[in-house]
Amino acid sequence: MQIPVGVSARHIHLSQEHLTALFGAGAQLHPKKALSQPGQYASEETVDLQGPRGKIERVRVLGPVRPETQLEVSKTDLLKLGMQAPVRESGQIEGSPGLTIIGPQGQVQLEKGVIVAKRHVHFSPDEARRYGVRDGQFLTLRTSGERGLIFEHVSARVSPKYKLDFHLDTDEANAAGVQTGDEAEVIELDGLHEQEHFHGNEIVRVNSSPKIEKPTEFVR
Amino acid sequence: MQIPVGVSARHIHLSQEHLTALFGAGAQLHPKKALSQPGQYASEETVDLQGPRGKIERVRVLGPVRPETQLEVSKTDLLKLGMQAPVRESGQIEGSPGLTIIGPQGQVQLEKGVIVAKRHVHFSPDEARRYGVRDGQFLTLRTSGERGLIFEHVSARVSPKYKLDFHLDTDEANAAGVQTGDEAEVIELDGLHEQEHFHGNEIVRVNSSPKIEKPTEFVR
Repeated sequence: MQIPVGVSARHIHLSQEHLTALFGAGAQLHPKKALSQPGQYASEETVDLQGPRGKIERVRVLGPVRPETQLEVSKTDLLKLGMQAPVRESGQIEGSPGLTIIGPQGQVQLEKGVIVAKRHVHFSPDEARRYGVRDGQFLTLRTSGERGLIFEHVSARVSPKYKLDFHLDTDEANAAGVQTGDEAEVIELDGLHEQEHFHGNEIVRVNSSPKIEKPTEFVR
Repeated sequence: MQIPVGVSARHIHLSQEHLTALFGAGAQLHPKKALSQPGQYASEETVDLQGPRGKIERVRVLGPVRPETQLEVSKTDLLKLGMQAPVRESGQIEGSPGLTIIGPQGQVQLEKGVIVAKRHVHFSPDEARRYGVRDGQFLTLRTSGERGLIFEHVSARVSPKYKLDFHLDTDEANAAGVQTGDEAEVIELDGLHEQEHFHGNEIVRVNSSPKIEKPTEFVR
């Protein structure tokens, strides 16, 4: 049960309001490169970040725009900026700090939205069925090689907007010595050994507590 | 079986010849802070690094001087410098690349010596006996918390010059969300479950192949 690894470098999602403030009235994002998740793209646009103790330049803006601005950085980046931020799932920005975003036409003093992305695996509903995984379930994945690591408590996210991908940030990828296109192996589902509980296409429900369907979340 | 974590930021060990070339005739290192390993210290001195695509300033020189110059950086640092380097144990610098080292009194074009430090645990002989570990053995360690990781194939290094410490670089520490002073748990010795094979102070030899004593290596 192999899953492709996708490494997320630091990036920002902008609200339409902030896109306008940073790039000017009528500004739009210009897709540069499609990302692994359907409909998502890296844009031509970049912004600079000013933290309390340091600046990071040319941070890629991902599109399309979202209801709320969210900045995903690594702990290494936070050290350079001189600030701290919580490890969070995409969209969970309550209580997270802000910083100054600098664009070609203006600046935004972000109040909240700086997070370190929590590792996770994206599945389409078909892929989830095939792998015997349900939304919100925890997986244990192993990467191989001389710096191989075992990642426990990796949350599975299932949505028609998703495609199979194990998302790590650059710190995690460097620590594991992996890059986008490498693969990780699922070795456990919810703390039970995968090889004992995964049987081909059969849907496995190792946790029988009722699952309330979450509203569709924004893709990261 | 808990082991303290020691995070190694980028640093350089200099030969006397290179110390002189960088800091001038008669230069000596001035100890600033003792490190966890006996006799080792961070010095007041720093150097700058110039790689093919980028520069890193104020890299700490560790003392005392060594027979050969060795630079230990993270994969994140390598990206900034614009070069690659192998993951190696301290002292294993054959075939590794060099770069330009810039000091206040001169520059050195290093021919080899740039490595990414391979994760490892230091033990004094007494600690090794107490933990039932021998030099060269592989351990599996787990860090806890929301970014907890399992590190397999961590080599144990035993020497009278060592003191108990699990050494990670900054990428690994950021990926695991740990810092110096946190603890990691040994969960396996040589692939056998620690809890099944570790019995207090008893010396456990899970691998019975004859062990040839290695010559004392330089401490990192």
